[in-house]
Amino acid sequence: MTILDGLPGALTDPDLLTSYRRDEADLCEAGQPLAVVRPTTTDEVVAVVKWAAQHGVPVVAQGARTGLAGGANAVDGCLIVSMVNMDRIVEVDRSNRIAVVQPGVVNAALSRAVAQVGLRYPPDPGSWETSTIGGNVATNAGGMCCVKYGVTTEYVLGLEVVLADGRVLRTGRRTPKGVAGYDLTRLFVGSEGTLGIITEITVALRPAIADPLTLVAVFPNTASAGDAVNRIFTAGLAPALLELLDQVHLAAIERYQPMGLNTQAKALLLAAADRTEDLDAIAQLCRDAGSGEVWQATDATEAAELLQARRRAHPAMEKLAMETYEHGGLIIDDIAVPRTRLAELLDSIELIAAKHGVTVGVVGHAGDGNLHPNIVVNRDDPDSVAAGHRVFDEIMECGLALGGTCTGEHGVGLLKRDWLATELGPVGLDVQRAIKTALDPANLLNPGKVLPL
Amino acid sequence: MTILDGLPGALTDPDLLTSYRRDEADLCEAGQPLAVVRPTTTDEVVAVVKWAAQHGVPVVAQGARTGLAGGANAVDGCLIVSMVNMDRIVEVDRSNRIAVVQPGVVNAALSRAVAQVGLRYPPDPGSWETSTIGGNVATNAGGMCCVKYGVTTEYVLGLEVVLADGRVLRTGRRTPKGVAGYDLTRLFVGSEGTLGIITEITVALRPAIADPLTLVAVFPNTASAGDAVNRIFTAGLAPALLELLDQVHLAAIERYQPMGLNTQAKALLLAAADRTEDLDAIAQLCRDAGSGEVWQATDATEAAELLQARRRAHPAMEKLAMETYEHGGLIIDDIAVPRTRLAELLDSIELIAAKHGVTVGVVGHAGDGNLHPNIVVNRDDPDSVAAGHRVFDEIMECGLALGGTCTGEHGVGLLKRDWLATELGPVGLDVQRAIKTALDPANLLNPGKVLPL
Repeated sequence: MTILDGLPGALTDPDLLTSYRRDEADLCEAGQPLAVVRPTTTDEVVAVVKWAAQHGVPVVAQGARTGLAGGANAVDGCLIVSMVNMDRIVEVDRSNRIAVVQPGVVNAALSRAVAQVGLRYPPDPGSWETSTIGGNVATNAGGMCCVKYGVTTEYVLGLEVVLADGRVLRTGRRTPKGVAGYDLTRLFVGSEGTLGIITEITVALRPAIADPLTLVAVFPNTASAGDAVNRIFTAGLAPALLELLDQVHLAAIERYQPMGLNTQAKALLLAAADRTEDLDAIAQLCRDAGSGEVWQATDATEAAELLQARRRAHPAMEKLAMETYEHGGLIIDDIAVPRTRLAELLDSIELIAAKHGVTVGVVGHAGDGNLHPNIVVNRDDPDSVAAGHRVFDEIMECGLALGGTCTGEHGVGLLKRDWLATELGPVGLDVQRAIKTALDPANLLNPGKVLPL
Repeated sequence: MTILDGLPGALTDPDLLTSYRRDEADLCEAGQPLAVVRPTTTDEVVAVVKWAAQHGVPVVAQGARTGLAGGANAVDGCLIVSMVNMDRIVEVDRSNRIAVVQPGVVNAALSRAVAQVGLRYPPDPGSWETSTIGGNVATNAGGMCCVKYGVTTEYVLGLEVVLADGRVLRTGRRTPKGVAGYDLTRLFVGSEGTLGIITEITVALRPAIADPLTLVAVFPNTASAGDAVNRIFTAGLAPALLELLDQVHLAAIERYQPMGLNTQAKALLLAAADRTEDLDAIAQLCRDAGSGEVWQATDATEAAELLQARRRAHPAMEKLAMETYEHGGLIIDDIAVPRTRLAELLDSIELIAAKHGVTVGVVGHAGDGNLHPNIVVNRDDPDSVAAGHRVFDEIMECGLALGGTCTGEHGVGLLKRDWLATELGPVGLDVQRAIKTALDPANLLNPGKVLPL
């Protein structure tokens, strides 16, 4: 007789438990779960949470575990509540432009379903083909279209949430506007499962749009790439996409799948716009800023190929890590600075990497000032891993000094807890803790995530 | 020797106190303040709040007092903290598209300042020429452009807030994206001074746009007007503005300032779009839905005139109330339903008004499903006022039954506290109270507002 006898559907197979231990944040601690449950209804989630509260067992909610900050990693002795079986699109309402979904619905599944009625769900995290809307909401996921269309939280109208004591809370609305009380919806968005378990999501949709037009511009140095970004925004343009790849990434992508990228370039910008005249203006501004090579896609196929190169950034860097070390790994960082400080951040990252003798490739959403430095380490060598973490910390320190934030879109999870404390300061941290305590006094919901211990 | 001796700058002139008692919500209770202060720095706000905490004096923050829900009304014995003297535009950063302002900056002042560098601050509440950004943020103000550009909260990136104990909290960021911890910024937006006093605001700006093109369409019945709204959205259009006036308003505006409006029409839609082809499509959809008369403005002057008619809705209804009764008054309501339920709501309002023999004019943001029924009452006749409040309550009941919310943009204040409780239900209300208690345990910040007693 164990406490698990009171928990129908609990899975405890050791191999299975291992497979649920962690998300995609490499080199990040993960505990050993007690069991896994995969509820199919809100009532089952309520029963599970009540059981956990009764037995003082920590609860870690998971979606597709594609997160990059360890937010979904197990803590020792926890119950993993996997939401992937709650994967029903409950409703798509074309005239009101909303959809109601369960949290386990995959982003791509929702995107395709609403496309069938001429609508669009804009948030497009890199993981969109596999990550769930629940996970996207829990982490307030970003993506490439955010520069024009904003992040997940802009599209969440209402939630159903199971609270720490098992009560079911409904937040928000189905109407375009509403100010009835404190904005609890957006308090739960990005809370990484620490305030409640999301069991239903009402999202706003937008009209479908034609695929934007695309160009690439290569730059002889980071200053000129940063200058191009500034010129584009100062000119009042609203690019649909404005991505950056540094030289390390360019070389890695070209090795991974050759497509004729100029690997001598110090930086590449990938831009998109909805109107030809806007893309032409962006092209000219890139040239004005010093780009010697601007290439506009002439059709959708070419545009898709350019986007594909950007999407290959992550696997290409993984391959680079494996080629560099037998057990190479990547510490994936996520930092955002005011757009005008991009070049300074890029230059600082290069200096920091050189100082520690570590390879760092930078890719990111230049239009949002949001960069992902990918730090290559040798898992077999503690010194290499330690050097990687020092690089990570120095990049954080630099980003905050430039007026930035320690996470633009990946979330805090385990990776950024201490930097969150630095960024928020004591008053900010106190208020965050007060909110957590008000909603989860026993600290059973994803304990140790977001807020430092 | 009174407790006020410890509060430099406290004003207690009785006439002055009276002038600070209430916002623009007619027929709404207001208490008698103890004193008024008008701080000019965050440090002064800190000193004031610490004084209030020490003496157990309730604190009511005010902007321009243009609110419509009594949120800024005095409570008995309170200290009014008027933020109008903190009216500095601290910074406009063109390349990063942000502005930093003190709360007392008037919306129009910010809008004009950023227009000088080719930028735009979209939120445009009806009161924009006089209301403050601080008040707009505290109430999460809407406006006419929300249908395309969203409400105030979409533009607030970060805040400085003086907490109930006098500590200064900084929330948010200056970067386009950021997910560092719980979204405290949006928790404070719309909290109506009940969680803290906002002393600085960082807002996102957008590129300036040309004034949109405008049309009016008149409809023989509400069903056809509602149908037109549905057709416009179902067709995937994104109007820059989509406003509705009912027959009572049309007649009132025409009496107030004749401009040839068809006062036989049951409803008028005012629409705007950024592109000619979109406005043409909207015109055709209005005709398809049964509008017998669609009139497109041919230039900016005509477009401005159409908007002016809409802006006259409120003074025209006030005049109607004064003409109907010697001491006529208006109870201004604010309700939002899913867009597809607009016609039902309009018809129900007409029936409710007729049942109680009360004049109700409806104006609102049709594209957001957000209507403002304006209820005419005779202040000298308690039965008339009581009938007005019954109409108000029945409209609320109807709106919630249609899947709506009790306030689309005016906020809860005093007027909607009980309806908030109905809308949220016991769990929602408990969580709202838990947040309030976590941040203001002594209940000194604007007590009795938002949450029911």
